[in-house]
Amino acid sequence: VIAILPVAGLPEIREGDDLGALVAAATALEDGDVVVVAQKVVSKAEGRVVALADVDASQHARELAGSDRDPRELEVILRETASVVRERAPLVIAETSHGFVCASAGVDHSNAPHEATLVLLPLDPDESARRLRASIREHSNADVAVIVSDSFGRPFRQGTTDVAIGVAGLVPLRDLRGTLDRGGRELRTTQVAFADEVAAAADLVRDDKADGIPVVVVRGLTPTGDGTARELVMPRDRDLFR
Amino acid sequence: VIAILPVAGLPEIREGDDLGALVAAATALEDGDVVVVAQKVVSKAEGRVVALADVDASQHARELAGSDRDPRELEVILRETASVVRERAPLVIAETSHGFVCASAGVDHSNAPHEATLVLLPLDPDESARRLRASIREHSNADVAVIVSDSFGRPFRQGTTDVAIGVAGLVPLRDLRGTLDRGGRELRTTQVAFADEVAAAADLVRDDKADGIPVVVVRGLTPTGDGTARELVMPRDRDLFR
Repeated sequence: VIAILPVAGLPEIREGDDLGALVAAATALEDGDVVVVAQKVVSKAEGRVVALADVDASQHARELAGSDRDPRELEVILRETASVVRERAPLVIAETSHGFVCASAGVDHSNAPHEATLVLLPLDPDESARRLRASIREHSNADVAVIVSDSFGRPFRQGTTDVAIGVAGLVPLRDLRGTLDRGGRELRTTQVAFADEVAAAADLVRDDKADGIPVVVVRGLTPTGDGTARELVMPRDRDLFR
Repeated sequence: VIAILPVAGLPEIREGDDLGALVAAATALEDGDVVVVAQKVVSKAEGRVVALADVDASQHARELAGSDRDPRELEVILRETASVVRERAPLVIAETSHGFVCASAGVDHSNAPHEATLVLLPLDPDESARRLRASIREHSNADVAVIVSDSFGRPFRQGTTDVAIGVAGLVPLRDLRGTLDRGGRELRTTQVAFADEVAAAADLVRDDKADGIPVVVVRGLTPTGDGTARELVMPRDRDLFR
């Protein structure tokens, strides 16, 4: 049996906060728990926040913004973009420096739109997960794994699902028996995106208030091994969609 | 709290089996449970199975098969294909008649490769889910929702995640507050692919033996409303990837 447990009572996260210590203080963790932390609070703790007032929009950003969107927002998105995968103003699907392909290069509005700030992805979400894990273990004595999650859209399907953009203390891909060739030999190993499924499961306890529950514990998986969320990025030479 | 509960003790499923009755007999269900059933057993109960010995391969199927794969298998895949989205022999990414975009048009090997049969997607997985729901409710007296799930790959990311290809008794997409425009008005509503996240969560209790656990109960969501998995298919005019 696997249980998905929301963590209540976290304060509003600010730059410099020790998020791991706050999580450990907010809930009783057990060995083998997977702590799923929403990217937005990780980024806020790391100061990955930009004030729109400090941004000058380029010509490209103005074109992409069209009449609906703030060109400075598109400017920030373009700065976070390694390459534009698709654009249809005011939508930009971008590959980030990490290799993730997602809307707006992962740039989000802050919860408080009147502050006019944007939240960027962590510079290295796997490193963020490792730091969080170390801090949680220090403050709770529980041997946990950590996933930093974000909501990504997908080609071909409506709606976002939460995926893992950083992991620590678990192997993100799980090998299954694959397709067999005519002689019964394995032709291709099927891999399950285990960390993405855990991130999606964690999202189920969130109500419809955005960021109401930034931290969720998934209990009962007791993962072993280690890896990075970069392993979840499809290598370009195997990607049929780029 | 949400619990993910594997259903043990189901017999091997054969054509004509009343899968809903078997599920109701195998586990104690409660009102509000979501019963997630793997597509493969649904298809087997519905007789959506093809013996390779009955298939003649076309020239196109032979080309796609290359030297590694059985051309008759590619023939069956092409028959299940409404349009080929990508091909790189022996891989075919296809849009099915239902509008799903997935590898091999959803055609799977049977568990027993020496029987040389292939399992196709249900003709109407939403109808399959509705029938299953009616049968489960009849045999258990529990008011459950049903998801028929399958493992799909995704562009840009490694590994499969389980998604919903049929639903009954729940609304598959959940609306969240969306992007705000300059005046604080909602520019675009964000939707969460709730049913896909439930399917992914259910997959977490499966071990690495394929189809070891075809039925999983997700308890604690108590969904309301109704809808179809077709709503999860991105309409062509909004799809930036086709």
